[in-house]
Amino acid sequence: MFYEFRLGEKLPGLVEKMMKSYEQEPKTRHLGERVLPDRREIVHIIRLLLELIYPGFYGRQDLNEHNLAYHVGELLPRVGVRLHRQIHCCLCYKEGTTGDRGGRLRERAAELTLAFLERIPEIRERLAEDVQAAYDGDPAALNTDEVILSYPGVLAITIYRLAHELHEMGIPLMPRMMTEYAHAATGVDIHPGAKIGRAFFIDHATGVVIGETTEIGNNVKLYQGVTLGALSFPKDERGRLIRGYKRHPTVRDRVTIYANATVLGGETELGEDSVVGASAFLTRSVPAGCTAGAEQPEVRIRNKAKPA
Amino acid sequence: MFYEFRLGEKLPGLVEKMMKSYEQEPKTRHLGERVLPDRREIVHIIRLLLELIYPGFYGRQDLNEHNLAYHVGELLPRVGVRLHRQIHCCLCYKEGTTGDRGGRLRERAAELTLAFLERIPEIRERLAEDVQAAYDGDPAALNTDEVILSYPGVLAITIYRLAHELHEMGIPLMPRMMTEYAHAATGVDIHPGAKIGRAFFIDHATGVVIGETTEIGNNVKLYQGVTLGALSFPKDERGRLIRGYKRHPTVRDRVTIYANATVLGGETELGEDSVVGASAFLTRSVPAGCTAGAEQPEVRIRNKAKPA
Amino acid sequence: MFYEFRLGEKLPGLVEKMMKSYEQEPKTRHLGERVLPDRREIVHIIRLLLELIYPGFYGRQDLNEHNLAYHVGELLPRVGVRLHRQIHCCLCYKEGTTGDRGGRLRERAAELTLAFLERIPEIRERLAEDVQAAYDGDPAALNTDEVILSYPGVLAITIYRLAHELHEMGIPLMPRMMTEYAHAATGVDIHPGAKIGRAFFIDHATGVVIGETTEIGNNVKLYQGVTLGALSFPKDERGRLIRGYKRHPTVRDRVTIYANATVLGGETELGEDSVVGASAFLTRSVPAGCTAGAEQPEVRIRNKAKPA
Repeated sequence: MFYEFRLGEKLPGLVEKMMKSYEQEPKTRHLGERVLPDRREIVHIIRLLLELIYPGFYGRQDLNEHNLAYHVGELLPRVGVRLHRQIHCCLCYKEGTTGDRGGRLRERAAELTLAFLERIPEIRERLAEDVQAAYDGDPAALNTDEVILSYPGVLAITIYRLAHELHEMGIPLMPRMMTEYAHAATGVDIHPGAKIGRAFFIDHATGVVIGETTEIGNNVKLYQGVTLGALSFPKDERGRLIRGYKRHPTVRDRVTIYANATVLGGETELGEDSVVGASAFLTRSVPAGCTAGAEQPEVRIRNKAKPA
Repeated sequence: MFYEFRLGEKLPGLVEKMMKSYEQEPKTRHLGERVLPDRREIVHIIRLLLELIYPGFYGRQDLNEHNLAYHVGELLPRVGVRLHRQIHCCLCYKEGTTGDRGGRLRERAAELTLAFLERIPEIRERLAEDVQAAYDGDPAALNTDEVILSYPGVLAITIYRLAHELHEMGIPLMPRMMTEYAHAATGVDIHPGAKIGRAFFIDHATGVVIGETTEIGNNVKLYQGVTLGALSFPKDERGRLIRGYKRHPTVRDRVTIYANATVLGGETELGEDSVVGASAFLTRSVPAGCTAGAEQPEVRIRNKAKPA
Repeated sequence: MFYEFRLGEKLPGLVEKMMKSYEQEPKTRHLGERVLPDRREIVHIIRLLLELIYPGFYGRQDLNEHNLAYHVGELLPRVGVRLHRQIHCCLCYKEGTTGDRGGRLRERAAELTLAFLERIPEIRERLAEDVQAAYDGDPAALNTDEVILSYPGVLAITIYRLAHELHEMGIPLMPRMMTEYAHAATGVDIHPGAKIGRAFFIDHATGVVIGETTEIGNNVKLYQGVTLGALSFPKDERGRLIRGYKRHPTVRDRVTIYANATVLGGETELGEDSVVGASAFLTRSVPAGCTAGAEQPEVRIRNKAKPA
């Protein structure tokens, strides 16, 4: 009824207005010249990769020593074909062509897909250490099964480690879309360009931000709400941001950063075994073995007007 | 088995208990007098609106200059019919009637739906500026395509700008349900009643809260974890909260608020070009061009007992 | 094409590598000895429980006094059968057996499922108070309908109260998986072991963490980003974390904790009617009626280099 009598007669005018809007704001519409990776496909690929990495925890639950090889043999090509298509999109996007003459980029995408799949056992080794670090670092953890089934920090690190591989291969867009999926699911925003060592643990997860040029050593532990971010950004003589230099902190081995601490700047270094206290704000380095912790407020007898 | 032998015989007793509970706690059940908007429908509408606003980035990927008009002509009525139904629900809810005698509210919903769709080109203009502000404000951004595809701050602002239109039209419930969808997806909680100027950027997104009576100027930039909130609330003589007065800050043009800063109070004003540092807590105004930044903690040699 | 010519020939080698990886890292794969609860089933159960608890707000919208009993009579066995299966999994997991000889655990799961369903009316009473506390505590709330439809804090508390019941019954894994679903959906991380009194309200929700051994009284109000967490953890003589002792704060009746405050430690107690200010960091107790609030920074005239 609404469509027939009201929207129907207005439709041509509305379509015309929208078309004008698309002409005037071409940045916010994407027409066919370049192919974009597909958000839903990327989410699907992440789920298949989780099944491959943590079999029995994600996906099928009836796995045993007899059927595991068949399961993996069936899963790998499903992941591979989808990955190949998205990587191909990203390479075409990068070169600004949909034609892909002679299938050169398709071939390159195949190489990268295979190289990525070959890397998965090594990624699993790193992740086994991360899972162990989560169990070792949290007295509330029942066992490593619970950690894999329910710790958002572990999910975020898993997706980061996968995205980081693709980022290192020079694939644009897709790695960031993967870490942003993790961000939406866990509240942890790790840029795929960040470098993170072994046995990394993020407890409680929500609100953690790890910037593009951050470097993190081994056995580092972060709590919820920690930012490893940039100071204000220098601009070039035309007033545009300078991109690509080191803007985010360096965090050495065995550092602990407690909840809601904010550490900023590309020259800020947290030395080995140093500790940053909860709620601390830092743009200065902390030497190895030292601690920087926020001051605690005075306790006052409250008068009637409550402070916030 | 379980159902037949155990739950089966207990079922009548359980149903009776539940029915008693519904009688005793009527606020937490909703029976037919008033129609509520439908959460899933609202999510569906948001997705269709994203396809309309950012064609090629959301939804169909094979768009080009030849088929775009047909796509939009097909999409608009699909959004329109669904929007009309939800807006109608909200108007009936507001007036406390399901009857809608003579179809007056149905007619009013049609007018509002058309008025909203007519506004979309203008909303797209604002969003193009927001997307550009995100690219200009973040050295990690590859280009505006990446910003649209993966920046949660841009998604949150997009949904806010749509919800704000509906809020301004006096439609209850639905605008807040839209921004809460954005909140769940991005960690950014913008009340649809907030007023936000042009070229607004929220980097990293998670944990940002912008209260109902906040006013934000043009070219403002926020980082993750920033709260623009209220101080404690005055109550009337019967001990109930007073609602509807200005409780949240005013933020002037070109202000930057860094990560995890908390700014509270309806009389707190951040002047033009002012800066609030990371982790700062403020209930005082900052004059134009000034800076308020949190103190950094002393670095101490750590003794064995680690502080938190 | 990709599969046939490239991935196809590499597949046996890849499968072999993966199989070796599963052997070497057995912790991160789960083969058939013990059954794990199923994430998707648990999400499904949560949705059905929400329909049961808030009928008309979640799920079917055409409910009235005449059909409500039939709806509940149809819903209860659907929830019950699914709950029974997951609880059975968790009990088998706990005892390390899939065999469940003689169906003893299946029988025990039936008892627990029925006991849980019997408890729902009482949980609804608590939730009605929580909903009222949200309306009473937020001047932006239109009415309790809006609170139930769109407040993430209320969703998080609802799922916590359900999970806490199952946790108290000694069921492993599932309660945590439920609260982690809430965490992903709302940004609120409440451990199912925490003890929380009546009329509890979390405004804006994102970033709140409430640890396993936290105790919270009645009429307590938290804002976004509040952590009730642990100090650093003592280890036993073999260097392993000591688990299971009281590590998180005690919060007495009518306490308010404002945005982004971090309160740590098992001996830290916030006395009745005390207030913790926004952004405050505390490992000390606050006596009844007192306030601890963070210092505000000095406002400075800004020179050209912007601080962050």
